[in-house]
Amino acid sequence: MKLGVIPGDGIGIDVTAEALRVLDAVVPGVEKVEYDLGASRYRRTGEILPDSVLHEVRGHDAILLGAIGDPSVPPGVLERDLLLRLRFELDHYVNLRPARLYPGVTSPLAGNPEIDFVVYREGTEGPYTGNGGTLRRGTPHEVATEVSVNTAFGVERVVRAAFRHAQTRPAKRLTLVHKTNVLKFAGGLWQRTVDAVSAEFPGITVDYNHVDAVMIHLVTHPERYDVIVTDNLFGDIVTDLAGAICGGIGLAASGNINPDRTTPSMFEPVHGSAPDIAGQDKADPTAAVLSAALMLDHLGERQAAAKIEAAVRADLASRDPENPGGTREIGERLAQAAAS
Amino acid sequence: MKLGVIPGDGIGIDVTAEALRVLDAVVPGVEKVEYDLGASRYRRTGEILPDSVLHEVRGHDAILLGAIGDPSVPPGVLERDLLLRLRFELDHYVNLRPARLYPGVTSPLAGNPEIDFVVYREGTEGPYTGNGGTLRRGTPHEVATEVSVNTAFGVERVVRAAFRHAQTRPAKRLTLVHKTNVLKFAGGLWQRTVDAVSAEFPGITVDYNHVDAVMIHLVTHPERYDVIVTDNLFGDIVTDLAGAICGGIGLAASGNINPDRTTPSMFEPVHGSAPDIAGQDKADPTAAVLSAALMLDHLGERQAAAKIEAAVRADLASRDPENPGGTREIGERLAQAAAS
Ligand SMILES: CC(C)[C@H](C(=O)O)[C@@H](O)C(=O)O
Ligand SMILES: CC(C)[C@H](C(=O)O)[C@@H](O)C(=O)O
Repeated sequence: MKLGVIPGDGIGIDVTAEALRVLDAVVPGVEKVEYDLGASRYRRTGEILPDSVLHEVRGHDAILLGAIGDPSVPPGVLERDLLLRLRFELDHYVNLRPARLYPGVTSPLAGNPEIDFVVYREGTEGPYTGNGGTLRRGTPHEVATEVSVNTAFGVERVVRAAFRHAQTRPAKRLTLVHKTNVLKFAGGLWQRTVDAVSAEFPGITVDYNHVDAVMIHLVTHPERYDVIVTDNLFGDIVTDLAGAICGGIGLAASGNINPDRTTPSMFEPVHGSAPDIAGQDKADPTAAVLSAALMLDHLGERQAAAKIEAAVRADLASRDPENPGGTREIGERLAQAAAS
Repeated sequence: MKLGVIPGDGIGIDVTAEALRVLDAVVPGVEKVEYDLGASRYRRTGEILPDSVLHEVRGHDAILLGAIGDPSVPPGVLERDLLLRLRFELDHYVNLRPARLYPGVTSPLAGNPEIDFVVYREGTEGPYTGNGGTLRRGTPHEVATEVSVNTAFGVERVVRAAFRHAQTRPAKRLTLVHKTNVLKFAGGLWQRTVDAVSAEFPGITVDYNHVDAVMIHLVTHPERYDVIVTDNLFGDIVTDLAGAICGGIGLAASGNINPDRTTPSMFEPVHGSAPDIAGQDKADPTAAVLSAALMLDHLGERQAAAKIEAAVRADLASRDPENPGGTREIGERLAQAAAS
């Protein structure tokens, strides 16, 4: 197993070290190449993602990423030219984001409801393409546009992946999330695609929710969701709410996946680089550790993935919420539990 | 006072009757013209919003709307060609949506936090313009686009309105909500506009949050918000979550406002037409009643508006959450309390 590691910025560096600690404990001997990408390289050299690095990264079996973004760099630059560029260049058309409220974790929702669903967020098109522009910029007559680009090719492949996943789940329910009543062009394509692909999956119950209605359901009846499929922007929004109701994005893992396996998939916690607490042994590495488990699962190392998940589950169930331990301590606890 | 009334579809009809009951109780003698618009007219005549009706509606001081949408009509048709058309034709560039957790109302959030903010949602541009299209529709090579159109003119006027409102609030905080790290063209225009207009309002603390971060903050620290300004689509999403954490959109009022008063503003509950419970005396009319209060406030009838709000506040504080009463009963209670 050849792994590319991009710790990135801020707490990305802290939590990646712990994810690797846990990984080493369950799968010894993984070959790792670390890439110095992010704010410090950009400040030092002006480089964000040199083509040669991108080329090298393609040679790995998978990529583990910490977090990207730093206040010293104009907002959006590293996010777009490093993180989103990796997702687009490596054609990570499935952004997989499980939402699970683990026993022992306190949800901000009253009554700690049952939450266990996964989001298939499209990762390579929609409003994230960077299409659009400005006219008469900086004048009172400025016009700024953003173009959401959706293709039958792009929508169908993520929808089909979501249906396949739904087949493996007990509830076998798939919910399309969009805003078809307003965004009729893109919404129409998504709705027709789900309708067409559903014919291939007669065992799956299909549902549709407007994205605004999802906001309500997630805080009142999150148990109604099993597999959600949605576009890049709605997926961004919905998965942060999902993370929050599951006890915070400090626990939320994600995979940027190319199910066709023509490129390495990339696994990262949903949280950002949190520069205010970087390097202080304060960040919870659990989301990064769970992302490593998603990676192992993707690479066919089901047992190793299950060991990590079980270690996390047990740790969360017995953590003192007021005093969960520092970054390193949590990492060491999880490594030990996963190895035994 | 000359009022145009559009009960619309489903529970829109039920709750509008109660909003009018309460209105009559505090401001007797309001002249009202009811417009038969919505699903039943569309089914009967194929008409959605005839130009002659739109012309007549323009002559009123304000419009009270119930809800639009019915399963007998293809999804989106009435929403776009009636509701959104009214907002666009009447240039309702401020979609004002207060979010307040009233005493006695149970939030789905644990610990019933303090929530009291207002959202200035842009109402006439952004992703709601209907710009975009499809190419090779229905083929494997289909491309569907949605274009978010943002103008300096359009952004500046809603931002300025939001700043003005922030000045009237004790906390005097304004938060721009967008996704500037990805949507750099539109996000840039919004951010530069807020920066520029803030110079005119030195007393206002200005902040920025990505829309995905708002999801987290709203369920963990909703008290951090005072005035939010955002685009049409983000505003749609954020205000449904805001309504949900304030006890449900059965209580959420809104105003589609033209602050320049060149056209009548339009007031409506945030909820939809809920066809499944229509005509059954089940819908909570409180959001419609509070929308009437927003209308009175907009029309300069501050005292009458305050009476309605006080009646609602008292009623919510003493309601049995299990058994709040039927549509008509709540309406009668509120009318009586507001009149006395
Ligand atoms: C940092 C940002 C570009 C990114 C996104 O919007 O996809 C992040 O919010 C995420 O969800 O991974
Ligand atoms: C019905 C729909 C078009 C509308 C919107 O998206 O604006 C509704 O959700 C709202 O928030 O008023």
